[in-house]
Amino acid sequence: MPIVETLEWIGAVDGSLMLIDQTCLPIDLVVYECVDVDMVWEAINSLRVRGAPAIGIAAAYGVCLGLQAVGDHDEDAFFSRFEKVAKYLESSRPTAVNLSWAIERMRARAVDLLDDGTDIGGIRAALLIEAKLIHEEDREMCHAIGRHGAELIEAGSGVLTHCNAGGLATSEYGTALAVLFTAHDQGKGIHVYCGETRPLLQGSRLTAWELAQHGVPATLICDSAAGHVIEDGRVGAVVTGADRIAVNGDTANKIGTYTLAVLARAHDIPFYVAAPTSTFDPNALSGTAIPIECRRADEVTNGFGKQTAPVGIDVYNPAFDITPAELITGIVTESGVISPVNQKTIADMLVGSRA
Amino acid sequence: MPIVETLEWIGAVDGSLMLIDQTCLPIDLVVYECVDVDMVWEAINSLRVRGAPAIGIAAAYGVCLGLQAVGDHDEDAFFSRFEKVAKYLESSRPTAVNLSWAIERMRARAVDLLDDGTDIGGIRAALLIEAKLIHEEDREMCHAIGRHGAELIEAGSGVLTHCNAGGLATSEYGTALAVLFTAHDQGKGIHVYCGETRPLLQGSRLTAWELAQHGVPATLICDSAAGHVIEDGRVGAVVTGADRIAVNGDTANKIGTYTLAVLARAHDIPFYVAAPTSTFDPNALSGTAIPIECRRADEVTNGFGKQTAPVGIDVYNPAFDITPAELITGIVTESGVISPVNQKTIADMLVGSRA
Repeated sequence: MPIVETLEWIGAVDGSLMLIDQTCLPIDLVVYECVDVDMVWEAINSLRVRGAPAIGIAAAYGVCLGLQAVGDHDEDAFFSRFEKVAKYLESSRPTAVNLSWAIERMRARAVDLLDDGTDIGGIRAALLIEAKLIHEEDREMCHAIGRHGAELIEAGSGVLTHCNAGGLATSEYGTALAVLFTAHDQGKGIHVYCGETRPLLQGSRLTAWELAQHGVPATLICDSAAGHVIEDGRVGAVVTGADRIAVNGDTANKIGTYTLAVLARAHDIPFYVAAPTSTFDPNALSGTAIPIECRRADEVTNGFGKQTAPVGIDVYNPAFDITPAELITGIVTESGVISPVNQKTIADMLVGSRA
Repeated sequence: MPIVETLEWIGAVDGSLMLIDQTCLPIDLVVYECVDVDMVWEAINSLRVRGAPAIGIAAAYGVCLGLQAVGDHDEDAFFSRFEKVAKYLESSRPTAVNLSWAIERMRARAVDLLDDGTDIGGIRAALLIEAKLIHEEDREMCHAIGRHGAELIEAGSGVLTHCNAGGLATSEYGTALAVLFTAHDQGKGIHVYCGETRPLLQGSRLTAWELAQHGVPATLICDSAAGHVIEDGRVGAVVTGADRIAVNGDTANKIGTYTLAVLARAHDIPFYVAAPTSTFDPNALSGTAIPIECRRADEVTNGFGKQTAPVGIDVYNPAFDITPAELITGIVTESGVISPVNQKTIADMLVGSRA
């Protein structure tokens, strides 16, 4: 794991948020300081910080930054500012449910404290503690996901992953990568195949970097080689993260995930999603309810500072796709593995985890 | 179609081979002159010229260049040089069967002429004519493939293609793109989705460029978006080229093709391969007999003049994969469409095309 933390709050209530600028990896390890909520919005939107859990944590700290400028004596101004900051931060990445989940949790805490008669200074201090708690709980969740998921990985097997669902996407061990790190730590002798994940190459830039840092044997492939690598018998399971999961188990994750799920089914190997229970969106009854963020054409045509497509070509650049529940062998959460994946098994696990 | 020819022989027997340097597209249209066989080998190996038929034509002209330096009076020296040049050119891209097919045809012509008592000067002149004939026949073949294939494309449908099987890969209209160009010329109102084709981006650099030149409505996508685009109902058929086809129909084509075939089958849409009959390898009984070229790691880690993966990461970079015959709805050749695809239907078509 990086010696530098993916995210770290520095100072007291008037402090700032330090984060690893993931757009500079794997060449440079740059720590980026966000001193106001605009910088957090930009950092999330431009993927300096990315991955659903990390976005949630950044947003929680972003709320704290956004409330630094309000006075201590006007409750209405404070809560009006809260709503403005919340709406603003939610607009930075529309698909990531952890973002709204974290903001909602901050809102609930603020409202509770107000009801208890806490003054604005106290609420502000408590909100920073809440953000740090979200951060710490995420760390614990990652390790729990790793423990549950590692049981599913056979010793000596090849495992394919996509995008980055590692420590950089969370507070520490990651989700999909927590499963692989834990299996590796247990001496299972796994070998990871890592899709580069066009257009933004989170797989080659971030996942390959994390796997190397952790000493896990790994091979980088182009996304389009996944079918060949699976067909060739090199891969015994696919493990990815998730950006948002509907209550029926349909899962939004990085573009390309759906293709891997189809390939896994065609070759009769398990396809696992690893994600904290906060990734479930109670408002999404199925995948069709999940908005798919479309990103700029130049990520595809000019992704590396070099024009690689004709000027003016039409581009379709969805950031996510939806993998239907029936293609998912199991969803690994901090509370255990949901398998088979359907509305009932998910509801049972969520009720259990909240009990 | 480009005003400049993909390949063109300039001058008489002592002339040279001009080719579009495809590594400079879509930004610069650079014409590259090969004055000896080493330059042809390098141009094929470094993908300045690429696509199975174009490689075959380049190799035929390469044979002519390789024989320029031999004297006119020693038959043994001439044929010893021929074999050396043939073996050398065959080593430039091991998977492309058209390469060995074209060289074998040049060899057979030379041997026939020798048997007829033709002198070396006459053989040399006849070999240049043979290379030009291979070139011209390819042009005709492309148009025939286009006519046969266009019948399979439904009006108003979306068609997904991969890599570049267009005019740049052949002498003129291409193979997979000939089908799409012809369907477009017939006013079928198709819309092409074009996978960028990592690592070397032949889809975005070359296919998108050719489609734009030809005025065919087209949208560029990342390879990993194919599953989402098909699932979304945007695509009614997949059409790709082929680098080598075994006698049972198993097809070697650009890495990622197999994944598209699996996706097409999972969504019940047709998957077509378009290729001249010269792409069938009578020595390959099935896909397992086809060698898969593995290319350099830096095409993946440093493909755009910028390091995008950690230094030292292991990379697996196969240039091709094998799509089994049972996933192929039909193979479009210059002699007609082979469907269903199996050893018998292929043999019938090949016998017919040679009758």
